[in-house]
Amino acid sequence: MAGLTGGDPSLLRRINSAVVLHALRATDCATLTEITRVTGLSRPTVEGVVEGLIEAGLVIEKAAEEGATRRQGRPARRFRFRAEAGHLLGLEIGPHRVAALLSDLDGRVLGAQAKDVDETADADERLERLRTAVAELLRRAGVARSSLRAVGVGTPGIVEADGRVRLGTALPEWTGLRLGERLSRSFKCPVLVENDANAAAVAEHWKGAATESDDMVMVMAGLSPGAGSLIGGRLHRGYGGAAGEIGALHLLGREVTPETLLSTTDEPLHPLDEQAVAEVFALARKGDARARAAEERFIQRLVHDVAALVLALDPELVVIGGWAAGLDGVLEPLRRELARYCLRPPRVALSVLGEAAVATGALRLALDHVEEQLFAVDGTVTARR
Amino acid sequence: MAGLTGGDPSLLRRINSAVVLHALRATDCATLTEITRVTGLSRPTVEGVVEGLIEAGLVIEKAAEEGATRRQGRPARRFRFRAEAGHLLGLEIGPHRVAALLSDLDGRVLGAQAKDVDETADADERLERLRTAVAELLRRAGVARSSLRAVGVGTPGIVEADGRVRLGTALPEWTGLRLGERLSRSFKCPVLVENDANAAAVAEHWKGAATESDDMVMVMAGLSPGAGSLIGGRLHRGYGGAAGEIGALHLLGREVTPETLLSTTDEPLHPLDEQAVAEVFALARKGDARARAAEERFIQRLVHDVAALVLALDPELVVIGGWAAGLDGVLEPLRRELARYCLRPPRVALSVLGEAAVATGALRLALDHVEEQLFAVDGTVTARR
Repeated sequence: MAGLTGGDPSLLRRINSAVVLHALRATDCATLTEITRVTGLSRPTVEGVVEGLIEAGLVIEKAAEEGATRRQGRPARRFRFRAEAGHLLGLEIGPHRVAALLSDLDGRVLGAQAKDVDETADADERLERLRTAVAELLRRAGVARSSLRAVGVGTPGIVEADGRVRLGTALPEWTGLRLGERLSRSFKCPVLVENDANAAAVAEHWKGAATESDDMVMVMAGLSPGAGSLIGGRLHRGYGGAAGEIGALHLLGREVTPETLLSTTDEPLHPLDEQAVAEVFALARKGDARARAAEERFIQRLVHDVAALVLALDPELVVIGGWAAGLDGVLEPLRRELARYCLRPPRVALSVLGEAAVATGALRLALDHVEEQLFAVDGTVTARR
Repeated sequence: MAGLTGGDPSLLRRINSAVVLHALRATDCATLTEITRVTGLSRPTVEGVVEGLIEAGLVIEKAAEEGATRRQGRPARRFRFRAEAGHLLGLEIGPHRVAALLSDLDGRVLGAQAKDVDETADADERLERLRTAVAELLRRAGVARSSLRAVGVGTPGIVEADGRVRLGTALPEWTGLRLGERLSRSFKCPVLVENDANAAAVAEHWKGAATESDDMVMVMAGLSPGAGSLIGGRLHRGYGGAAGEIGALHLLGREVTPETLLSTTDEPLHPLDEQAVAEVFALARKGDARARAAEERFIQRLVHDVAALVLALDPELVVIGGWAAGLDGVLEPLRRELARYCLRPPRVALSVLGEAAVATGALRLALDHVEEQLFAVDGTVTARR
């Protein structure tokens, strides 16, 4: 871990600092001797680094904190990482709701807040709802805004690296919106914007249906279907951030849209009316013939989209999410059809995180960012913004 | 580059050796002083390593070789990498032909040999044809079989990491064939088996249409269509080696096979009759109405397959290959249709390597393997097999 010789002394100090933080974070608390042993750094180096980390508020001496009874002789001082030294937000901005998750520097969730928002709301109104949700969440948790170290955001659309929405048809005024820049006005820390399906993929991998799989596709099986994928445990965004935007495939040839497929009348459903979709699924489960036919058509379309993703990427696992309810009925038919058409059919599982997936993934992306800054020990230490 | 301290001394020696080889290979020839400067190693270390490399036959002293006239005083000894110290083969095993490429350790092609083979030939016959081609190639080039360091092979089908063909419908007896093991009997060096479209992708990236693009998809637009893709310059094989096997997509829904689409009669073409395909393309170019209609149907099908790949992966570039001739007519319609259906349309280019793509990619994979053994300096040095 350690062992960089020569070169920039401030870089070296930063790396040593990351090494010590990394070691402390992996344990409850540790003595200087233990840190020296684990990191391979010299005792004086460890002492200097720990002193600096205490000054920065990232480490605390445990005895001092707990007032532990001291045994005879000079006791061994014990130190721990202060996960409460900073906080992170994971935000979702969707068609029907905005949501926020708050965590400490260990990613432990401290609170959540969600608000409904009208699907016709313009960008200003939608962002104002989000700001209100965040303010309420911070107040309730007793966390100061200045304590935030990074904010992750998941939202529909193709998102540029600078946080601009290149294309986003699901939300009004979304295409072209400088979302990262707009949100940055509310926060002093970095704001990282990500496509919602990508964020959901990261979330299911972190604490959902895909914790055991590094090669997975997360399908948001909504009326505007999209997908996010991890390859070797890393998010695959594509060259222009558009990977997984499989929804356009139905425009080719004679296929029709999910809105038409799922309709039980001659009129298509509204593209964002997921309530109507849930009703169709519920009716189908009760045996309604038209609803069953509609569900069948929808499943065929979903099979086609998922098959295209699976054939292109060959993931180990496909996670289906994106609906509040009603999707469990699609799993069996999906598995059966994929087994027919795919040379190596993947496992298929339902999202574990459900509604919380996008905000949870956004939180994980914020945590990744902070970890890269504080704990990167693989030679590259990202400079603080 | 250098600077590993402590630890296994033989590992350190191997790393230093790789560092010196790496430096020598990047230049025509170099003095010990130059090597010392470039590598950051000490003079005695460089001297020891160079001596060892000379003994191993990988490095030679240039003056000794050329008998150069020595100037007054002690001349600076110059050393060069011996690319001729070992050789590599890139092999293609296809439905209609087998092909072999021979190179030195710098990847410089020294000779090529191809042989037609009947599409109905069984595995034994096909491999025998390949062995004959290889034997002729080595004899013609005057290269001993014992000089081979690695052999790459590209062939249709899903190929396991151990060289077994898990599924290969294009060639008789191919599914289940332990191809790597079979070929290993003819060679003492490692044999690396790869899917043909994957090999072609690597080839176009190395010296074809994709030298400027690390995020590309190579579409083998044959009657059994398949694709290989590079993500961030690395081959994306998928979890089970089946990535890009997009051919099954047409089995879904109402779509029909290329054999039907391209037929100008009511009878479908034979799945492997690429000559018939070339004739249809040629007829279409002459203005034949039925051939034009057939070509049009085929292009629509190709657009759908390519769109599925592009939407899933979002590559920067799509390279179309897999036919000997006739494909240039599909580029414009493909570009036009992708621009309609893809959120971020990729560039579309024709294969530069054509027929040579698969064997060239197989050669590059063999070269990668040897480079990993000889020149890996990023901390991990793969042990020699």
